[in-house]
Amino acid sequence: MKVIITAGGTTEKIDDVRSITNLSTGRLGNAIAKSVLRNFGEKLEKLYYIHGNRAIPPLGTNVVSISIGGVSDLEKALKEILETEKIDAVIHSMAVSDYTVKELTTLEDIKEGKTLDAGKKISSDIDDLVIVMKKTPKVISSIKRWSPNTLLVGFKLLSHVPEEELIEVGHVLLLKNGCDFVLANDLKDIKEKTHKGFLVHPDKTYDTMDTKEEIGETISRRVLETLSSNMIKE
Amino acid sequence: MKVIITAGGTTEKIDDVRSITNLSTGRLGNAIAKSVLRNFGEKLEKLYYIHGNRAIPPLGTNVVSISIGGVSDLEKALKEILETEKIDAVIHSMAVSDYTVKELTTLEDIKEGKTLDAGKKISSDIDDLVIVMKKTPKVISSIKRWSPNTLLVGFKLLSHVPEEELIEVGHVLLLKNGCDFVLANDLKDIKEKTHKGFLVHPDKTYDTMDTKEEIGETISRRVLETLSSNMIKE
Repeated sequence: MKVIITAGGTTEKIDDVRSITNLSTGRLGNAIAKSVLRNFGEKLEKLYYIHGNRAIPPLGTNVVSISIGGVSDLEKALKEILETEKIDAVIHSMAVSDYTVKELTTLEDIKEGKTLDAGKKISSDIDDLVIVMKKTPKVISSIKRWSPNTLLVGFKLLSHVPEEELIEVGHVLLLKNGCDFVLANDLKDIKEKTHKGFLVHPDKTYDTMDTKEEIGETISRRVLETLSSNMIKE
Repeated sequence: MKVIITAGGTTEKIDDVRSITNLSTGRLGNAIAKSVLRNFGEKLEKLYYIHGNRAIPPLGTNVVSISIGGVSDLEKALKEILETEKIDAVIHSMAVSDYTVKELTTLEDIKEGKTLDAGKKISSDIDDLVIVMKKTPKVISSIKRWSPNTLLVGFKLLSHVPEEELIEVGHVLLLKNGCDFVLANDLKDIKEKTHKGFLVHPDKTYDTMDTKEEIGETISRRVLETLSSNMIKE
């Protein structure tokens, strides 16, 4: 079997030295990858690990590690693999930026109605620097389009919401993007040694986990179980 | 002797999960720290290593590692140490953001002249997100004010300029901030295995180095040499 795991965060460049990054460390993705390697064992022909620059790839002779920067790099890497190889599952744990940089400008220029696509060079001496953002495409919504038969695990991170809302929002993401599972988690429940997560199923039932290792274990077992039962059906 | 090295890059928070970071890896600061530890030897009572979250501190029983986020954290940490202890030298290699986040808003709100300090919550569904920035204080200009007798090494990174301009701009920074040395370098000369740098002196002469290790070696020797000759004068 072949699996893709995305991990860490995307980085959107502002200029040569500055960028907008996501605080994601990639530790969750790493824990999931280790569980997949262990639980799939010899059944795992190849693990593509697509990761942001802070994330550390897992070790393994069947691991192909791909380091990416922005959302467009992620989209390109996923599309290429999914359209050229039969991939059994995508575990999409990467924190993908909702926005990318459209232009650097100044407050004054915006107020004066100057066109924003002029693309002038900004000196570091100006006082009212403004970064204009634009929305990135939702990469997760393309995965089933590129490869309809690939099992898909989506991730939803919210901040300080009640548990019921977390499950509800996770389930909406699942239905919207044709996911087989969605890992829903809340910033307030991510600590140094604990990481609470809910793995939401299509019927809205869910598994509850308390550490990154447990999340990795549950996701890898659920994915393997589903792939194996699909194979029996076929 | 006591030395402070700053390394890596600052991180300015946009919200709970996003931030603006500098691409700096902290590898140069680490190379400098290793040379300082080796060349100062037993003369080094304490090395404060103030670093960004991606930078890896050097090992040593006399190393005190301080992890910081934004420019204001850096300012606070430096001020506190410099005002409470006698520090012999500050080697300020950290890539410090020129800007911090003032507010998140929308293009529409700016055009309509709405006040920017309103501080409203931004949904991730809006299309014309705008990040308004404000200038950060120049931390390097405060160092001699907090501690006039501390030797100061400044750093200047430019992008694609001729060598003469690099030396000139480095020397201007030296004069402006009362630096004893300035390491001037250019993005185009920083590669995986090489890192060209010029250590500019007050008389505008300079040392030329080709790797991070050579830069570390030259800076630590020049600093030690200057501190030792100052001690003889005293």
